[in-house]
Amino acid sequence: MSLPAKTRLLDTINSPADLKSRSREDLKQIADELRSEVIDAVSGTGGHLGAGLGVVELTLAIHAIFDTPSDKLIFDVGHQCYPHKILTGRKDRIRTLRQGGGLSGFTKRDESEYDPFGAAHASTSISAGLGFAKSRDLQEKDNKVVCVIGDGAMSAGMAYEAMNNAGSDLSDMLVILNDNDMSIAPPVGAMSHYLSKLVSSRSYRGLRKFAKFIAKPIGLESQARKAEEYLRGFAMGGTMFEELGFYYVGPIDGHDLDVLLPVLENCKAMETGPVLLHVVTQKGKGYEPAENSADKYHGVAKFNVITGEQQKSAGGPPAYTKVFAKALIEEARRDDKIVGITAAMPGGTGMDLFEQEFPERMFDVGIAEQHAVTFAAGLAADGMKPFAAIYSTFLQRGYDQVVHDVAIQRLPVRFAIDRAGLVGADGPTHAGSFDIGFLGALPGMVCMAAADEAELVNMVRTAVEIDDRPSAFRYPRGNGIGIELPAQPKALEIGKGRIVREGSTIALLSFGARLQECLKAAEMLAAQGLSCTVADARFAKPLDEELVSRLAREHEVLLTVEEGSRGGFGAFVLHHLAETNAFDNGLKVRTLHLPDIFQDQDKPEIMYAQAGLDAHSIATRAIDALGRGDMREIDRFARA
Amino acid sequence: MSLPAKTRLLDTINSPADLKSRSREDLKQIADELRSEVIDAVSGTGGHLGAGLGVVELTLAIHAIFDTPSDKLIFDVGHQCYPHKILTGRKDRIRTLRQGGGLSGFTKRDESEYDPFGAAHASTSISAGLGFAKSRDLQEKDNKVVCVIGDGAMSAGMAYEAMNNAGSDLSDMLVILNDNDMSIAPPVGAMSHYLSKLVSSRSYRGLRKFAKFIAKPIGLESQARKAEEYLRGFAMGGTMFEELGFYYVGPIDGHDLDVLLPVLENCKAMETGPVLLHVVTQKGKGYEPAENSADKYHGVAKFNVITGEQQKSAGGPPAYTKVFAKALIEEARRDDKIVGITAAMPGGTGMDLFEQEFPERMFDVGIAEQHAVTFAAGLAADGMKPFAAIYSTFLQRGYDQVVHDVAIQRLPVRFAIDRAGLVGADGPTHAGSFDIGFLGALPGMVCMAAADEAELVNMVRTAVEIDDRPSAFRYPRGNGIGIELPAQPKALEIGKGRIVREGSTIALLSFGARLQECLKAAEMLAAQGLSCTVADARFAKPLDEELVSRLAREHEVLLTVEEGSRGGFGAFVLHHLAETNAFDNGLKVRTLHLPDIFQDQDKPEIMYAQAGLDAHSIATRAIDALGRGDMREIDRFARA
Repeated sequence: MSLPAKTRLLDTINSPADLKSRSREDLKQIADELRSEVIDAVSGTGGHLGAGLGVVELTLAIHAIFDTPSDKLIFDVGHQCYPHKILTGRKDRIRTLRQGGGLSGFTKRDESEYDPFGAAHASTSISAGLGFAKSRDLQEKDNKVVCVIGDGAMSAGMAYEAMNNAGSDLSDMLVILNDNDMSIAPPVGAMSHYLSKLVSSRSYRGLRKFAKFIAKPIGLESQARKAEEYLRGFAMGGTMFEELGFYYVGPIDGHDLDVLLPVLENCKAMETGPVLLHVVTQKGKGYEPAENSADKYHGVAKFNVITGEQQKSAGGPPAYTKVFAKALIEEARRDDKIVGITAAMPGGTGMDLFEQEFPERMFDVGIAEQHAVTFAAGLAADGMKPFAAIYSTFLQRGYDQVVHDVAIQRLPVRFAIDRAGLVGADGPTHAGSFDIGFLGALPGMVCMAAADEAELVNMVRTAVEIDDRPSAFRYPRGNGIGIELPAQPKALEIGKGRIVREGSTIALLSFGARLQECLKAAEMLAAQGLSCTVADARFAKPLDEELVSRLAREHEVLLTVEEGSRGGFGAFVLHHLAETNAFDNGLKVRTLHLPDIFQDQDKPEIMYAQAGLDAHSIATRAIDALGRGDMREIDRFARA
Repeated sequence: MSLPAKTRLLDTINSPADLKSRSREDLKQIADELRSEVIDAVSGTGGHLGAGLGVVELTLAIHAIFDTPSDKLIFDVGHQCYPHKILTGRKDRIRTLRQGGGLSGFTKRDESEYDPFGAAHASTSISAGLGFAKSRDLQEKDNKVVCVIGDGAMSAGMAYEAMNNAGSDLSDMLVILNDNDMSIAPPVGAMSHYLSKLVSSRSYRGLRKFAKFIAKPIGLESQARKAEEYLRGFAMGGTMFEELGFYYVGPIDGHDLDVLLPVLENCKAMETGPVLLHVVTQKGKGYEPAENSADKYHGVAKFNVITGEQQKSAGGPPAYTKVFAKALIEEARRDDKIVGITAAMPGGTGMDLFEQEFPERMFDVGIAEQHAVTFAAGLAADGMKPFAAIYSTFLQRGYDQVVHDVAIQRLPVRFAIDRAGLVGADGPTHAGSFDIGFLGALPGMVCMAAADEAELVNMVRTAVEIDDRPSAFRYPRGNGIGIELPAQPKALEIGKGRIVREGSTIALLSFGARLQECLKAAEMLAAQGLSCTVADARFAKPLDEELVSRLAREHEVLLTVEEGSRGGFGAFVLHHLAETNAFDNGLKVRTLHLPDIFQDQDKPEIMYAQAGLDAHSIATRAIDALGRGDMREIDRFARA
């Protein structure tokens, strides 16, 4: 099949080297084709669209001017890397984005030498870039290092830590601030206001002055000092970035190749320590439905290119996120001490709904999980009931704060942990694999996992009532099971699980939303004549020790099942059994958990099957543990 | 016993309320007495001296002007809180500082209502303070919130995240920047340079202008706007703090009560959103030996007040920290790819020694663990061999970076984890309890623990050689056991433990430096006629599964022993045993780990006994598990 004519020039670009000999007019044409190609590809796969459209020209210009992969180009987060992937030898696979076996939706070292440092979480690029810069200096290499970071990512402390270090270290590196005045949601915080002020006060004067800068290419060594002075002058007095030791250049129009190309050329020639180039772009640029959308088509389903209409999800049960948000809103209507906190994910966590009803009681603190957790601790210390809604994977960012500011002080911060377990298309960087272990290890912490959306509603209630210590409840990405929600939420008894199905031979003890798979597994086992108890532990901490001991005592086999890594729920069960001498006389216990690998993206059901956490795998492990029955027979039944 | 005359006025101060009616001259006298009392107390207990001496006047002035505890005073880190403790009803107990059962060396909520938020790790105070401020606003209270944060703590991203949030939120709060141009070591990074610049360019002019500000007290509402303008004027143009939305006041002399008292009075009266008061102090102020010392007597042993001479430690085996540093230096002499990284702890981690020999290859990145880890990842991605030397408790700050930037990318960053396990006088905030679990959960990570200083040397070697994945080795606070160090370090076989003592009935499997206690326990058991194998696992990951299985198979009882929480080494052993069906026919296994509480400070040996991780406890658990023998008999033998 021949490629459509609309990518006529782009088709000739197999690597960034092919951009070098191109005229500026050609490059403009390639940019247009690149934009079309991104839109077309994402319309078929879904994925992150707005961010990539905003950096089409910037990405092209960087690859045209710098010598990647020898020069290191490090994208922050990676949502914006689709144009980069197309230009760096991956265009043939661009329609496999975020699919099983396909391209990652983020930069990834394994995937290409043009991805020197993978990403997915925000604000890591300057730290990594400084590492590359110091390594280059120590090894006496002469490659350039270019980081591209968004204005939203600048709210994270990590970016500040890196600038604080880079600005005094003075290694050569170029940090391109891609300022589209958007994070996933509109950015918050003082830095965001500051950048707006910079843009409004400087852009016009800046552009006029820039004419000269562009007109006069800088020589290398000989003119470096002059360039230095020039840039200082251009920056017109101290910006915050200059106070932190960077040369500040900009702001410039990030969609105008006539500006971008010469400015990057000059930045490349500079050897004056760290440079911050402030580029103003528009998220969703060049695709009208995205430009006009509130979230600039940050993350989209498959869509119709002409109308921009996105495929609706199939309907069905409500998403856990929404169930959580509605439950919290209900609680907050009754209790004005309840407040909500999000770290730049109002939509993803459902806190946007909470904010609609309680604008004064919802705090979006920016991409700032460390601060989010300790801010919540401060609120709790003064008698409020904070719910910090943070994805499992991002809570890793605030772990010390959970330990030091919350748990040691036994403050009743409530952690609503969304995206716990495997997450599908976002892959390993977003999997919520470790929270059961890292929270369950903390003295005094209450750790719950919701087996379904009705349980989630009750856990929200339970967390409201736990006011003498911290608590956390986790729930998976995606939709509930369609169970009716409780009309009156009721608080669960702390540290008590429940028996969901009574049996005698095999006990399946689930922690979290694999409960449904356990019930299916029990059916499969029953079909084999094996009587099966299914229990929902509800709490990993405090563990329902009585339940665990009873299940162990009264069954031939005990399996624990969880959507988390080793060292979590199953481990706590094993510790308890060891402490109570339950192994001394024989006990067939198995712990089913996520495998000890980072699983690549795929459909969640496929990933859970790989992990051995689907019904068939669970039933098979049970039979295997039991040590009797015909495996082939099981297989036939199980798959039936 | 009557108190000495030198605290004549201080003796009359039982709470901050007693300061209110005092004349300024009295307050000056009280400050002098307070300083003497701090020096005298710490000379007898050891502890953190320099930081407290630097804030004697500031602490006194805050308590004199603000209405604590109704007004919330939040100290960052807490090293500087001894004068605060003396003024807030704890002077009778000040000589129990950092002792078992005594006062904590940090602020602590349980200890006093004057400690609204505990601390010990850096840079948390602004986040907590903003929580208190928002809580106050929502509850329509009118208390003030005052945070005291050092310039060193300003290098942490968390402080920036909090300022970024506070500066756009605009709640009233006062952040006092205690700028002594010192962290524990001299501070690094661009922010530090910037503060120096502020001080040098502003102080003189500032002080002159300040005369007026001091002379004219501000009324409340009516004059608030004027005060606002005045302060803006005083600040003389944009500082970085103003760009972040704070009113910047200062710099002022933090040892001059004639300045401090009226300025704080005015700051208290302001209702203009967040204010940053820049106070310049001198660490160790007023005690000559401290002033003249390079580290300003940051942390001291007991000392002679007259001479300043500190009690020498008893000598004996070298500290693990020093053994690590020397071993790394040796390796670095042979391999110029090795680089070292510390997050503002050059002395504590031994990286100061490394820097002496390799100044270009050691990076002190500031209090910035998030950045430190990803910076190391960048170095590793470009072919260097980074050793990130970070205490266990502080590595919690960089956990997401370990997961996302190091482990998922399988980059060979080497983590040298000092202060793993219990730490004595610093108490629960500094205990290294959780790293085995939170690192061991990560696919691909190599986790080692050194049983003694010779093992540590070999583990440094091993880590140098592990170049296809991340690795970590942990070692405890304090001194080694006096074993000879290997003349030629040799790399350990990955995932292989060792048998240290052969026996037949009981197996003790140690991970880390409890090995000596296991050997002592084995002696106790042998004296009872119980033959005991002692093994050193060396690796929690990859686990020596063959060794574990063999120990389980060939002994009646298997005990695991580690200086870490549940969900760590013992859990991995249990997972393995469950997966290999080792429990099916009976196995007496027990996991000995840190208890599920945050242990208060005490002598380490007492804390380990409380934790059940001393030889006697180990032997007792083994006998108990064995289920035979006379416990009283054991007790007699064990304690002999």
